[in-house]
Amino acid sequence: MISLEDARTRILASLTPTAAETLSLPEAWGRVTARPVVARVTQPPADVSAMDGFAVRAADALAGAVLRRIGEAPAGHPFAGAVGAGETVRIFTGSFVPEGADAILLQEDAQAEGADVTVGETVRAGRWIRRRGLDFTAGDELIPVGTRLTARDIGLAAACNHPWLTVRRRPRIGILATGDEIALPGEPIPAGGIVSSNAHALAALVRAGGGDPVVLPIAADDRAAIAEAARAARACDMLVTTGGASVGDHDLVQAALGPEGFELDFWQIAMRPGKPLIWGRLGATPVLGLPGNPVSAIICAVQFLLPAIAVLSGLAAGAPPVVRVVSGGALAANDKRFDHLRATLTEDAQGRAVATAFEQQDSSMLATLARADALILRAPFAPAVPAGTMVDAILLRALGV
Amino acid sequence: MISLEDARTRILASLTPTAAETLSLPEAWGRVTARPVVARVTQPPADVSAMDGFAVRAADALAGAVLRRIGEAPAGHPFAGAVGAGETVRIFTGSFVPEGADAILLQEDAQAEGADVTVGETVRAGRWIRRRGLDFTAGDELIPVGTRLTARDIGLAAACNHPWLTVRRRPRIGILATGDEIALPGEPIPAGGIVSSNAHALAALVRAGGGDPVVLPIAADDRAAIAEAARAARACDMLVTTGGASVGDHDLVQAALGPEGFELDFWQIAMRPGKPLIWGRLGATPVLGLPGNPVSAIICAVQFLLPAIAVLSGLAAGAPPVVRVVSGGALAANDKRFDHLRATLTEDAQGRAVATAFEQQDSSMLATLARADALILRAPFAPAVPAGTMVDAILLRALGV
Repeated sequence: MISLEDARTRILASLTPTAAETLSLPEAWGRVTARPVVARVTQPPADVSAMDGFAVRAADALAGAVLRRIGEAPAGHPFAGAVGAGETVRIFTGSFVPEGADAILLQEDAQAEGADVTVGETVRAGRWIRRRGLDFTAGDELIPVGTRLTARDIGLAAACNHPWLTVRRRPRIGILATGDEIALPGEPIPAGGIVSSNAHALAALVRAGGGDPVVLPIAADDRAAIAEAARAARACDMLVTTGGASVGDHDLVQAALGPEGFELDFWQIAMRPGKPLIWGRLGATPVLGLPGNPVSAIICAVQFLLPAIAVLSGLAAGAPPVVRVVSGGALAANDKRFDHLRATLTEDAQGRAVATAFEQQDSSMLATLARADALILRAPFAPAVPAGTMVDAILLRALGV
Repeated sequence: MISLEDARTRILASLTPTAAETLSLPEAWGRVTARPVVARVTQPPADVSAMDGFAVRAADALAGAVLRRIGEAPAGHPFAGAVGAGETVRIFTGSFVPEGADAILLQEDAQAEGADVTVGETVRAGRWIRRRGLDFTAGDELIPVGTRLTARDIGLAAACNHPWLTVRRRPRIGILATGDEIALPGEPIPAGGIVSSNAHALAALVRAGGGDPVVLPIAADDRAAIAEAARAARACDMLVTTGGASVGDHDLVQAALGPEGFELDFWQIAMRPGKPLIWGRLGATPVLGLPGNPVSAIICAVQFLLPAIAVLSGLAAGAPPVVRVVSGGALAANDKRFDHLRATLTEDAQGRAVATAFEQQDSSMLATLARADALILRAPFAPAVPAGTMVDAILLRALGV
C-alpha cells in the first residue's frame, strides 16, 4: 500500500497535456490556454474622458470663467478639430480627448447656456482623463499559458482583439463500469443485482472537471467483455474503470486487461474509503481503476481523477483545493489509512465554517455522500481531537461534485 | 439611488423560475430539480455482505470450528439454497446474504481447504452485514425540489433507478451591447472606437451561472436599432443590455425602449463601480440594463445577474456567496456607495486567506479585474480599518467568473 500523496504524485507525473486546438472566443470559456493571449491593441487607444462633461484647457478653466463650446465628441465620434484658448468641447465617458484639451470639466460643475459654458469649479490639468494604455498596451502578455479562462478573461481577450483562442482539447475520459450484477437505470435489474450509478456519476464528475466523458457499455464480469471495452478505450486520453479492483475472485479488471497489454504501476492505497485503486497503462492510455463501491469511486475520483483531468487539460499538478474548517464534533484517532469523513457544513456565531461528520460513515451509503457538503480529511495516524479543532476539508459542491 | 441590497431584493422578487423540462440523466448535471427524486428501489435491495469472506450462522462460527462450504454467492449471483447448521457459503462484497446465515466471517479470519472452512476468529451475529435499505428505501425522497444537481446527485438518481429527471429549463438570457463606438474582436475598428468585450464576457458569465446566452447583434446608438434588437429579445427569459445606462445625451437605452413598452422599475444604485443600472420590464421580459464600462458591467452582473439566473433556474433568492478574509492592507473609510475593491488572494502563516486590494481601482481597468481573485466588499459608510482586519469578499474564480 502506498500513501495517497505518493499515489497522486506518481499519477500526475506520468501525464501530459492534450494537444492544442483553436476555438472561437465564446467556446473557450473554461478551457486552459495553450498559447498566451497577447494584446493586439492598446486600451484605451488614446487619452479618453473618464466622465461626461467638457474637454477644456486647464489653464482656462478657472472658477467663473466662461468658455465657448465649439463642438461635441460623443463616444465613437472623435472631435476632428482642436480646443483653442477659451474654447471647450462637450465630451462623454470614453470619448477621445480632443487635441489641445488637457482636462475634463465635470458636467455637474458646469453651466451650459447656448454656446457658453460657465466653469463652476477650477479644474486641474489631467483631471478625469484616462491615459492611453492605462488598461493595457499592444504587445502586453495579458493571459499566460496554462490559465483556465474565466468570464473576465474572455472579456479581456475580446477587448484586446482576439476572435480566436488556442486552448487545450478537453481530455477524453473513457468510463468502463464492470460487473454482472449491475443494470443501467430503467433497465431490467437482474436477480441479485443493483442499479449502476458509477458510470454516470463519474461522467458528471468528468464534466465538472472540464473533461469529455465517454461512457462505454457496461462489461459483464468476463475477460472477453472487459478486454473488448478496453480496446475501445485506446482512443481516450485516459481510461477509468470501476469495479473489479478489490481482492475477490470475481475481480477481473487486472486479469482481463493483462492480455491486452496492461502494465500495472501500482495498486492499493492507504486510504479509506478507496483502498483498492489501480494505476497503470494500456499501451499509451493511462488507466485508473476505481473501486466498484460508489462512495469509494467518487472519493477516489475527487482525489485522483479531478487532479489528473486538470493536468491533462494543461493546468499545474496539485491536490484538490483544501480549506480549514472547525470540526463540529470530536474525532477519533485515525489508523494508518488516510480517511475522508462525510460531513455537513454550518456556520458558527463568528461566521466560521463548521464541518460535522455524519455519525454513520459506512462506505456503501451514497445518499449520505450526496447530502454531504464536505469531506473532512484525516491524515494517517492523526490523533483524536476534541470538537472545535481546526481541520482540513474538501468542499464538494465547489468542485461541481 | 437605492441600495444594492434593496435593488437585488426587488429584482429577485419579480422573477419566476422557467418551465420544467425532462432530460436524460446525464444531461441533468448542473440543472435544478423541478420535481423531487424519489427512490424507486431499495438499496441495498436485501441484506448484503460488506466484505469478502464466508456467510455463516454466528452460533456455529466459534474460533476453531470447521464449517462445510456448500456453495458460493458472487455479487449478482445469489446463492439459491439456505445455510444450515455447520454450513457456510463463500461470499463477496455486495453479495446477498443467503437464507439462514446471519454474519460474515472475513476471509482473512478463515482457512479454507477443499470444502472445509476453519473459523479463525469467533464471529458475532450481524457482523459485516449491511441491512436491506441501509442506504435508502423505495419511496424515500432523496433529492428535494430546487436542488442544483451535483455529480453525486446524478449517481444517487441513477442508483435509485431514474433514467430521466425533471428539471428547470436553462434561463435564456438575451445580451444586447449598444454603442456606435464598439466593434467585435477581429472586425474593423471604427475611428475613435474600441473592441467590444461586454457581450462575450457576459455570455460566459451567463454560462457560468447555468443560463443559456443569446448574443444579439450590436446595436448602434440609435433608437431604431435598439428597438429592433429589443423586439428580438422578447422570446428571452431576461434581456440584459450594456451601455446607454448613464446620464449622457448619448445614452439611449431608456429612450429607445420606451416606445417599445419598456416600464422602468428603478435605476441608479448606490454602488461603485456600477451606479447607472436600469431595472424594468419590456412586456413580460425583465430587462437589466448594465453600464457600458466592462468592469462595472461584470461587477453588476455578479451582484445582480448571477442571482437572477439562479432564481430563474429554480434556486432560492440570495446574494452571491461571501467569505470572510483578512484584508492585506489598510482600507480607507467608504462613502455612501457600496464599493467592490479588486484584490488578489494569498495565504498567511496560519493558512488564512488574505485579500489585498490593487492600488489602482479605476473602473476602466479590465486587465486588473481579470487578474483579481476577489472583490473586497465595502458597505456604505464603512469606517477605515487597518491591515489585518477581517472583511467580506466575493471569490470570483469559484463562480466561474
